[in-house]
Amino acid sequence: MKKIEHLGIAVKNLEESNALFERLLGVAPYKKEKVVSERVVTSFFKNGPNKIELLASTDPNGPIAKFLKKKGEGIHHVAFEVEDIFAEIDRLKKEGFTILNEKPKKGADNKLVAFVHPKTANGVLVELCQEIRA
Amino acid sequence: MKKIEHLGIAVKNLEESNALFERLLGVAPYKKEKVVSERVVTSFFKNGPNKIELLASTDPNGPIAKFLKKKGEGIHHVAFEVEDIFAEIDRLKKEGFTILNEKPKKGADNKLVAFVHPKTANGVLVELCQEIRA
Repeated sequence: MKKIEHLGIAVKNLEESNALFERLLGVAPYKKEKVVSERVVTSFFKNGPNKIELLASTDPNGPIAKFLKKKGEGIHHVAFEVEDIFAEIDRLKKEGFTILNEKPKKGADNKLVAFVHPKTANGVLVELCQEIRA
Repeated sequence: MKKIEHLGIAVKNLEESNALFERLLGVAPYKKEKVVSERVVTSFFKNGPNKIELLASTDPNGPIAKFLKKKGEGIHHVAFEVEDIFAEIDRLKKEGFTILNEKPKKGADNKLVAFVHPKTANGVLVELCQEIRA
């Protein structure tokens, strides 16, 4: 785990929250991206070595829509950058963590990603992410 | 806002969660610290340029005990490092954010801290923190 790559925040309205986080962080989002497999549209803000990702749902039955219904807007997950996502998944499984997708999938922002079940991580939805190298 | 200084995670049992996050992050906590004013005991893990702070309550009526009762274990707040906390509080107030403590207070890990009300920040409890210089 090299650093916090990004913090994912669930929001109802991406345009309104883009404006709010631009005022909070003092920078505009640098990217907007739809992730069809996750049924979300995302935007990203740079914050030094880290990023803030806003996630809005594109589907009333998608995971972010369900999160918003249950918990309201707020922090949804933390993503850690890893050097080798396959090795890290193996290591964490041996340490007793449940990995939600054992085969990493393509996430936003040119990353291979995998999630650790929050029930095995103190209620925290942990994302592992590794840059896809060309 | 220079970077994510740390991510604060509310836990029930600090010793058990220290062991869990040591397995997750692959490093041991480097510090344990009681913050009497917040009625918490905390531990800190380094993660590249960032930190993870675990917070357990020392008082059944303290803020972390209340958070655990209402939401269970999980991410409690995100702290951003700022260069000048007084200037940042002024800036955020002008941008329409509600600051919970307008006069910064001494937090854990040798920091001056102030919090932004989550109702004005998309449900996210935002901490500003500035290193106390000797």
